[in-house]
Amino acid sequence: MNPVLSTPKMHYFYLPTLTQGSPQLEDEEFQHCIKVLRHQPGDTIGLMDGLGNLAEAILIKITGKTAHLEISRQWTLPAKPFRHHLAIAPTKNIDRMEWMLEKACELGLDEITFFQSQNSERGKLRTDRLEKKAISALKQSKSGYLTQIHPLTDLDALLQSAKADTRYIAVVQPDLPYFSTVLAAQQSVLTLIGPEGDFTEAEVVRARDAGFIPISLGHSVLRTETAGLMACHFVNVVNGW
Amino acid sequence: MNPVLSTPKMHYFYLPTLTQGSPQLEDEEFQHCIKVLRHQPGDTIGLMDGLGNLAEAILIKITGKTAHLEISRQWTLPAKPFRHHLAIAPTKNIDRMEWMLEKACELGLDEITFFQSQNSERGKLRTDRLEKKAISALKQSKSGYLTQIHPLTDLDALLQSAKADTRYIAVVQPDLPYFSTVLAAQQSVLTLIGPEGDFTEAEVVRARDAGFIPISLGHSVLRTETAGLMACHFVNVVNGW
Repeated sequence: MNPVLSTPKMHYFYLPTLTQGSPQLEDEEFQHCIKVLRHQPGDTIGLMDGLGNLAEAILIKITGKTAHLEISRQWTLPAKPFRHHLAIAPTKNIDRMEWMLEKACELGLDEITFFQSQNSERGKLRTDRLEKKAISALKQSKSGYLTQIHPLTDLDALLQSAKADTRYIAVVQPDLPYFSTVLAAQQSVLTLIGPEGDFTEAEVVRARDAGFIPISLGHSVLRTETAGLMACHFVNVVNGW
Repeated sequence: MNPVLSTPKMHYFYLPTLTQGSPQLEDEEFQHCIKVLRHQPGDTIGLMDGLGNLAEAILIKITGKTAHLEISRQWTLPAKPFRHHLAIAPTKNIDRMEWMLEKACELGLDEITFFQSQNSERGKLRTDRLEKKAISALKQSKSGYLTQIHPLTDLDALLQSAKADTRYIAVVQPDLPYFSTVLAAQQSVLTLIGPEGDFTEAEVVRARDAGFIPISLGHSVLRTETAGLMACHFVNVVNGW
């Protein structure tokens, strides 16, 4: 059994340098561990580097704003047999993107790119806040793998640079194939989710020309953030994940 | 094509008495239509009764706090060929239940019951706020069908009164079948989602005795509200909805 599940109450912290020796917590992870959760020398805590490596460590001592640790056991979670990269037009209300990201991280989303398209509602995006959300979701869900967040880009740049095995664009139109009927397991998948006003017809044509397959997420008219999250779940379901 | 999709910009309002003649908006729907969205006599608006009946109506006149309407066309959306009743232990932070409900309504969830179990984090629940969320999601998603919200109950009362064709309990345990592999299409489904501390072993035994099948929602450790929403999506995916 995954050791994470056998100790459900243990607190995990994010340490990207976990496998590089001399483990210690600083900055925000120090704050969270020592100031918020009030861990003390002798306590056992969990560590994750967001790349699948996890460890149990003993808090040895606290000097200034550094918590010194000693790793007692270490393991690696198997990577998923598929990859999902979600690309989505950010909503005007950024809270909606933040919660979607939190949930998408819980579901194990690998990468996310925010893009601007003709009907976009937001032209700027602070990815640092979103990165904090992703780290917090990693620690909460103990998935072991951090969702990678790419900077805001332009739809056409994204269409040209896309490298996934299979690429899809979710569109609200009749007679499109239902997403799970065209998805295959064990692929790298890129899914595009448009803004509230949807993609324009010209954008759908350009995406199709770039090898993206138009698909439907179902009968319901979903908000952008719901559509993004359901796209993640479709990919998981087809992979039995 | 569904007339709702052909007029995506039209504002819809909730009128449970839609099919009973003399349509008029009062109270909160009046506020939303006249005070917030500032509709005026002559405007065309949409109406839904939450039971699948929709209409387009012309705003004839405003007297006091009543908007008088005249229906110009009326139609009924087909009901889904399946039903899903989600039963979930409410989270301590009610915001998490509210957003889950909003999203579950978007996905077309038919019924929701909140229940108390041994590890429950919340003993009281104001369903009136949740009902407003459901109405707001109905208007936004234009699904035509309102999610029915039942009062807070006790897990054991729920286990005994459950009437769905197929009943499932989501548990975080190894070697349980993945939800979509046991779900069948075109059924009425009841899914139980436990609190953050999960169901106790005794509760799982009692659920099993009452005919509930333990299932897994996947590899990830999901928060309660994410688990609830994903349960809704599993049922939709198996039905191609």
